[in-house]
Amino acid sequence: MKHSLTSLLLVVFLLSGHTCTLGAEVINVADHGIVPGKDVTFAVNQLIQDVLDKDGVTLQFPKGQYDFYPENAIEKYRAVANHDNGLKRMGFPLFDCQNITIDGGDSTFMFHGRMVPVTMDHVRGATLKNFSIDWIRSFHAELTVVESNANEQSFVVQVDPEAYPYTLQDSKVLFQRFGQEDPIGSNIVFDPTTRAPLHNTRDYSVNSSRAKVTQAGGNRLRITDAVKKSPPVGSVLVVYGVHPTSRLCPAIHVTNSQDLRIENVTVREAGGMALIVERTNNITLDHMVVTSNQDHLVATRADATHFIGCKGTIKLDDCLFEHMLDDGINVHGAYVKIEKYLGDREFLCEISHFQQWGLTFAEPGDRVALLSRETILPFAETTVENVHVLNEHRFVMTVSEVPESLPDGPMSVENLTWYPDLEMRNNIIRENRARSVLVTTKGKVLIENNHFSSQMHGILIEGDNNKWYESGAVGDVTIRNNVFENIGFSGSQNYPLLASPLLNGAQRMGAGHYHRNIRFSGNTVKSFNGLLVQARSVSGLTIEANTLEFSDDYPAADPGPTIDLDYCDHVTIRANTVTGFARPLTIQQSSDTTNVTIEDNRGFHVVP
Amino acid sequence: MKHSLTSLLLVVFLLSGHTCTLGAEVINVADHGIVPGKDVTFAVNQLIQDVLDKDGVTLQFPKGQYDFYPENAIEKYRAVANHDNGLKRMGFPLFDCQNITIDGGDSTFMFHGRMVPVTMDHVRGATLKNFSIDWIRSFHAELTVVESNANEQSFVVQVDPEAYPYTLQDSKVLFQRFGQEDPIGSNIVFDPTTRAPLHNTRDYSVNSSRAKVTQAGGNRLRITDAVKKSPPVGSVLVVYGVHPTSRLCPAIHVTNSQDLRIENVTVREAGGMALIVERTNNITLDHMVVTSNQDHLVATRADATHFIGCKGTIKLDDCLFEHMLDDGINVHGAYVKIEKYLGDREFLCEISHFQQWGLTFAEPGDRVALLSRETILPFAETTVENVHVLNEHRFVMTVSEVPESLPDGPMSVENLTWYPDLEMRNNIIRENRARSVLVTTKGKVLIENNHFSSQMHGILIEGDNNKWYESGAVGDVTIRNNVFENIGFSGSQNYPLLASPLLNGAQRMGAGHYHRNIRFSGNTVKSFNGLLVQARSVSGLTIEANTLEFSDDYPAADPGPTIDLDYCDHVTIRANTVTGFARPLTIQQSSDTTNVTIEDNRGFHVVP
Repeated sequence: MKHSLTSLLLVVFLLSGHTCTLGAEVINVADHGIVPGKDVTFAVNQLIQDVLDKDGVTLQFPKGQYDFYPENAIEKYRAVANHDNGLKRMGFPLFDCQNITIDGGDSTFMFHGRMVPVTMDHVRGATLKNFSIDWIRSFHAELTVVESNANEQSFVVQVDPEAYPYTLQDSKVLFQRFGQEDPIGSNIVFDPTTRAPLHNTRDYSVNSSRAKVTQAGGNRLRITDAVKKSPPVGSVLVVYGVHPTSRLCPAIHVTNSQDLRIENVTVREAGGMALIVERTNNITLDHMVVTSNQDHLVATRADATHFIGCKGTIKLDDCLFEHMLDDGINVHGAYVKIEKYLGDREFLCEISHFQQWGLTFAEPGDRVALLSRETILPFAETTVENVHVLNEHRFVMTVSEVPESLPDGPMSVENLTWYPDLEMRNNIIRENRARSVLVTTKGKVLIENNHFSSQMHGILIEGDNNKWYESGAVGDVTIRNNVFENIGFSGSQNYPLLASPLLNGAQRMGAGHYHRNIRFSGNTVKSFNGLLVQARSVSGLTIEANTLEFSDDYPAADPGPTIDLDYCDHVTIRANTVTGFARPLTIQQSSDTTNVTIEDNRGFHVVP
Repeated sequence: MKHSLTSLLLVVFLLSGHTCTLGAEVINVADHGIVPGKDVTFAVNQLIQDVLDKDGVTLQFPKGQYDFYPENAIEKYRAVANHDNGLKRMGFPLFDCQNITIDGGDSTFMFHGRMVPVTMDHVRGATLKNFSIDWIRSFHAELTVVESNANEQSFVVQVDPEAYPYTLQDSKVLFQRFGQEDPIGSNIVFDPTTRAPLHNTRDYSVNSSRAKVTQAGGNRLRITDAVKKSPPVGSVLVVYGVHPTSRLCPAIHVTNSQDLRIENVTVREAGGMALIVERTNNITLDHMVVTSNQDHLVATRADATHFIGCKGTIKLDDCLFEHMLDDGINVHGAYVKIEKYLGDREFLCEISHFQQWGLTFAEPGDRVALLSRETILPFAETTVENVHVLNEHRFVMTVSEVPESLPDGPMSVENLTWYPDLEMRNNIIRENRARSVLVTTKGKVLIENNHFSSQMHGILIEGDNNKWYESGAVGDVTIRNNVFENIGFSGSQNYPLLASPLLNGAQRMGAGHYHRNIRFSGNTVKSFNGLLVQARSVSGLTIEANTLEFSDDYPAADPGPTIDLDYCDHVTIRANTVTGFARPLTIQQSSDTTNVTIEDNRGFHVVP
């Protein structure tokens, strides 16, 4: 009997496909002089260096606050997608290792300068768990409006100089952050009662280069010549600097890795995103939290999580993302410009967006699609044989075969191998600037049982080759049984679901449809503006059994049709219910939308 | 007979110690598509990559202009001493190779962007010859003064917008250079008749941050609120930007290399120095020229040549360096701060000057001296066993032995192994901002038969641990039979020879003398100010058989003693001759100067 059980366990273990970590070493970091109350950076860097070549080590931190300073930190030049590249000093430099676990024991890792707390590069099978990341000082400043003079378009803010030390010079305010002097730069007004961006916050946007800032006594600053409309007294102007120094410090940077887990990790602050992941195969976030600490309204300077050029499965369970200055999650690939066909199956390629410079776009063996740069519709597929990186901006890509004739117009390329599946269950994303979810991937997407309450779109399925260059026309998306609450409280025409390539500049719709097979069903939408779904260039769209309930949390608004279809095909709108609105809600479709079935809905008015 | 001769040649060859390059390959670059009239960057980068592992290759360029653009250039993050570190795009990326020769065939290599034309890193036995380096656009701007209003402290300059495109914004002028917008920043007024900095140019220095710049019609700009004294009509205000974007592009960067030759190479422009050399063993410059092209008064943004932490012999023969915005040559080591003794023979060290960050200060086997940070006098020597680089700023150095007790005061360290000999013969350095020669090295220095005419000191033997952190108290310097002409035409108290540690801030003189054994003899000094030698903390100084002739090229001046001795020992002043001065010239010595012999001089007056 006993023998059989052992055999069975062995079989199960072998079948599970995991790397062997039985008997793995657990290191109490206190045994290496890593204790609260001092700068542990050097000791942590050193201990990591010493264990990198071991398989299956756990670094166990006894609970406490551990302080990290930049002075003695390991540094490397790093390209970080969607951030500002540069020399990065690191708290946990995890390079080329496998099955390492950082178990924080519910500790706080407190950072004291411009650092990247965690870097994972060529890591297999790592787990980060049970810690929070915070900084001793914010990468933004929160300024409370104490006087608002609508007629003069000027207002006065109160600054806490302990939290946000500043200098005034030539009518400009500069915030001192970790050795830098940051101007106002990007900014948004928050509402301290909702801990979210103020309704219609765009009205109060400060023109940083035009703003004149003068002393108004007692750490109060008067801001003039900068706004169309003065923000109300009691609201909080959040200012967060300018490129190329405002996105230097994501909390966690992952690249070229696989089989990772982030579990019970909280990020309270970051000079960038909480988590940016590049070219990684399988990653699970379980109870990851991004939130502001009690002293601040705002958490991270940018997105909670962002994934570019990944594969395998991205899985998010039971996460909470709130108070960020950008999106909750964004999953996409990259459209890269083909600068020139050099002949001999070689293409000179140029990474299009400056915050993708340095990206590993492709490696030998990857399948890529060649596309029209204007319609972003593919005309050929081929396999990468070699990539010769010239600089962060350009590379030469050799492929296995090239079509007999290439189109006359401009071309782009996307990597088909590196698109992930996405599974999101039981997550909350709310009270942030911008969207809850952006997703463009050719993988299978399942978004269910989540709660979304974002200022702009709830879920944006976009894709563009003219602004962010985020690729990945979708092919299989299910969005079901989620709650969308007060989506679009920015006051613009923001939908719980918008699926449309971004068409601007030279972009235009091609003959084929861009996105395919999107199912939006069983969702509960609590709404002050009556918006549900906008779709353009989608073939295969089902909007089914959703409930749209009127909410009076924000002033009622009527910014557009409830369902808006433009150049879509095979659309089913069935069994949706509207309750509580004082006006009829509309379904609108363009004349080139085809094969639409609308049935059994309650409370809609179909516009011909 | 024949046999014997062959044997003899073989013996001579073997004894000469050169690496075998018989039968070395000569490649005509035209055979690889590298021809004038197109962007050759990619092809040159590629060809270099293909030959790096060969020994003794010559790349032969047929005469012509070859154009290099940054778009497709190979790029690496590079720390470059005395420059601004960052991503560098390269024309000739020479890494890890030996006995390569780049023979330009008298061609011009024309650069079209922010690039480093030549990089040599871990190169043995290379030769660069027969080419000139130029840029399509300057890293500075030359603005001709067309109106000068002394009473208003304002003036008007004429700008050539083709050569120096600019924008005006908020009363500031920004010059567009290769994608950057550079403010006035550093500046100096040149005299177009002498093609050198104007006499007393400091009077006209423009305060860039205070300056108000407005349109004065027809590409004329009025500059107000910026100068103590308006520069004269006809003079040329040269403006050259600010750190950290004003020293990104030296023309030639050499590091960790040995046995190099630069021969008949001309540098007409650089966004930094013409040549910066780090940690290199033996380098010869023969007929190297730094000069401005016909369109400009000014050549390089910084020094003609600069050597930090080298060994072997630095040899300069028949070079011409003129019209630079900084020194002709500077040879020195680095004083590095000891932040903390960590115990176990480990020192936490910090590179002191921000433009030395990233320097390879030492490697295992190097002898280093530990010194008082204040007096820069050594108290111990030891050998480096390990260097663990933490970041560009700090490293941990393990040494073989540590004194039983370390001093209480702050400590520094210098590298004794990496000090070179310097031989300079038959060179001309003139018409530049700043000095002709700076040299601090423990090696043997011979400077003979050169012609120097610089705005500040002729030869500066300094060393400091509080500003530039340039180490290398000298021990054997001979300066003979040179001509010094109008040294110090900046108008300050600048000497043909100044030998003194820079004492400022916390620096102070120690009990021992800092410099030793300097001989200044047989030189001809043509002077409007009657200055010859100033020395402080020198033991062993001979000033002999020099001729000091009055020159009326600049207004006669009397800024200080002709020979000025402060805390010197063993000084001989013998057989020097003064002619043509209307006043008696003085020799002055401090009361703590000892063992002075003054004899057989003509035209001097000794001040007690």
